[in-house]
Amino acid sequence: MQRKKILIAQGGGPTMVINESLVGIIEEAKKKSYQVFGSENGVNGIINSKFYNLSSFSDEKLKLISKSPGAALGSTRDKPDEKYCDEILKIIQLRKFEKFFYIGGNDSSDSLKIISEKSDKLNYKLQCIHVPKTIDNDLVLNDHTPGFGSAAKYVASVFAGINLDINSLPGVYIGITMGRHAGFLTASSTLLKQNKNDGPHLIYLPETTFNISKFLKDVKLTYQKYGKCIIAVSEGIKDKNNILLSQKILDSNEKDAHGNIQLSGSGALGDFLSNEIKSKLNIKRVRADTLGYTQRSFIGCRSEVDEYESKLIGKKAFTMSLKEKNSFSLAIKERENFNLAYQTNIIKRELKDIAGKTKLMPNNFINNDCNNITNSFINYAKPLIGKKITKFITKI
Amino acid sequence: MQRKKILIAQGGGPTMVINESLVGIIEEAKKKSYQVFGSENGVNGIINSKFYNLSSFSDEKLKLISKSPGAALGSTRDKPDEKYCDEILKIIQLRKFEKFFYIGGNDSSDSLKIISEKSDKLNYKLQCIHVPKTIDNDLVLNDHTPGFGSAAKYVASVFAGINLDINSLPGVYIGITMGRHAGFLTASSTLLKQNKNDGPHLIYLPETTFNISKFLKDVKLTYQKYGKCIIAVSEGIKDKNNILLSQKILDSNEKDAHGNIQLSGSGALGDFLSNEIKSKLNIKRVRADTLGYTQRSFIGCRSEVDEYESKLIGKKAFTMSLKEKNSFSLAIKERENFNLAYQTNIIKRELKDIAGKTKLMPNNFINNDCNNITNSFINYAKPLIGKKITKFITKI
Repeated sequence: MQRKKILIAQGGGPTMVINESLVGIIEEAKKKSYQVFGSENGVNGIINSKFYNLSSFSDEKLKLISKSPGAALGSTRDKPDEKYCDEILKIIQLRKFEKFFYIGGNDSSDSLKIISEKSDKLNYKLQCIHVPKTIDNDLVLNDHTPGFGSAAKYVASVFAGINLDINSLPGVYIGITMGRHAGFLTASSTLLKQNKNDGPHLIYLPETTFNISKFLKDVKLTYQKYGKCIIAVSEGIKDKNNILLSQKILDSNEKDAHGNIQLSGSGALGDFLSNEIKSKLNIKRVRADTLGYTQRSFIGCRSEVDEYESKLIGKKAFTMSLKEKNSFSLAIKERENFNLAYQTNIIKRELKDIAGKTKLMPNNFINNDCNNITNSFINYAKPLIGKKITKFITKI
Repeated sequence: MQRKKILIAQGGGPTMVINESLVGIIEEAKKKSYQVFGSENGVNGIINSKFYNLSSFSDEKLKLISKSPGAALGSTRDKPDEKYCDEILKIIQLRKFEKFFYIGGNDSSDSLKIISEKSDKLNYKLQCIHVPKTIDNDLVLNDHTPGFGSAAKYVASVFAGINLDINSLPGVYIGITMGRHAGFLTASSTLLKQNKNDGPHLIYLPETTFNISKFLKDVKLTYQKYGKCIIAVSEGIKDKNNILLSQKILDSNEKDAHGNIQLSGSGALGDFLSNEIKSKLNIKRVRADTLGYTQRSFIGCRSEVDEYESKLIGKKAFTMSLKEKNSFSLAIKERENFNLAYQTNIIKRELKDIAGKTKLMPNNFINNDCNNITNSFINYAKPLIGKKITKFITKI
């Protein structure tokens, strides 16, 4: 008898722990003697018939893969259209894959929903399982997403270190963090603050309106009060017309010889804000860093909670798929009370309820002045970065 | 009888382990019943009579301080002139400090040399001890400097993660690293490479001449060969006239409304190189990150070798000061053979032989094409980042 076959793919921006989920699925599938294939570079590998035979991988190799950041199978930004989906299903049918696990965020879950709906209309029934991951933490009906905790730990560690660095040599520091729509990662810059005068002192999120005059006023007041000012700014901050500030800087620079300044992987936003402060507030020492891709790929800064959950959600994805016939998504169940001891709770969700939707920071996580976060956010996010963090002191 | 008194200060850019040296001195001094004072913000705290009584700190507090990045006493960029030095010595004499330990790099050792020479001419004899630290690793007559190993581990971890990230979503990645004169930190981006096709594929150092046409040719060839190209660039790269590329970009931007683009804490160099690649090589996915201040301040990425040596050199600074009457500097002795098992060896150096001098990458650490490093550099630097590094895999 031929062994049953499953397919796994990874989509979108990788995380530090995305391969834990991959290995979680493989481990459980091997226990049930399934043959496990991996598609190279997400859905792109399906239409190009590029598959890894993951069942053949040794336990030792799987362990190394699980500990590596980045998408081990390769990822993609491809967004399948009708024709692309037909092609995917043709290959999947030809290869006789019974289940398709897609590890990804908003876009990947949306692609999966379309594939799933198309397959439901065919005589070939494919079970599609969405395994969530994203450092942005912006999937609806999820308390938080696998990948977020480790990225949040990294961002918190960066700002905790920067606070000590700026204590040594005072000035203004701007750190630009990832998150185009949701500010969870930017807000996480506060998670290792010890005292009120520790940075970050100001936080600007994509969920609120960014006003440059208000920003300069905030910086001035903070600098007067503490003799330093550390600021966390999301790359996704927008003005009152909902236009990205990065887009506005891009537009104003379009006449330059080297035109194509971009939003991510560029220092333009940080440099713009830094120059505004220097020129308008007459503060000399102003530094801006863009935290960049290391936020999702750094080696050696995982949250043990995130690591555990990412593996577990992969395992549950497979075991649940045996009990279910239909397509589905998994989620970490939303907590009702952030003050209780943290416990992981993984549940099933309808794919259509998750796919393509974006969760933003709720209002009660953002202060009234829209330049900082509240304690509710701290209570929510603190358990997710784990406890394996170097102890340090910010004031001697 | 009044207890003998010593003074400690920290100068220049901090490191992740600079406080290990501070605590090392304090611990040994306390054993000999010295009273230990710390000057706030380097030499600046002396002329302003801002001192901490470090003898009063509990062991628990000292331990927390030793584990914290940043200069716990505060630092300074002040470069004392004649009058400033006279003032320093006046206060030191008034306070009856017998020994002055200055933890710092090139500039701090130079300040200390001047203070020491001035004091030798006075009837008040002050013993000045230079305790080395700098992430740049550019002190002469030092195998390497305390602070370098941890910064190198951080940079190596960033690029190892970026390599996995770019494996997932291929393109060109430029990482700008610290080091205005010496390329040791930029070169360290290679220390966790596993295979030839792992990034970084190209490395540009301040020690060699940077030519933009040659750079573009290198990138094109690498991208054709590997389908990706990861590049480590020092912030200190210079053209054939020895002009900083960052300075040239600054000059070309001076006509902008927001003029003051700067060299560090700015994304200008990365953005410039990124735009050159996009516009001239027609490669779409190009990202540039400037690694920024986190290179010297990140919490949770210390080299255990660096940590050990930084503490030890602080301890030795004090114990040696009891045997010596004159001023001196300490150093980690240069190895004769990088292939032997690594052993720390701390020795005494003349202050005048270290002060204000800059060590650069030796020629045999740089490849003939001036776009990469040699195995000699790997053999030299690998032991310094320690062994406590997450195991990962770069090719499945």
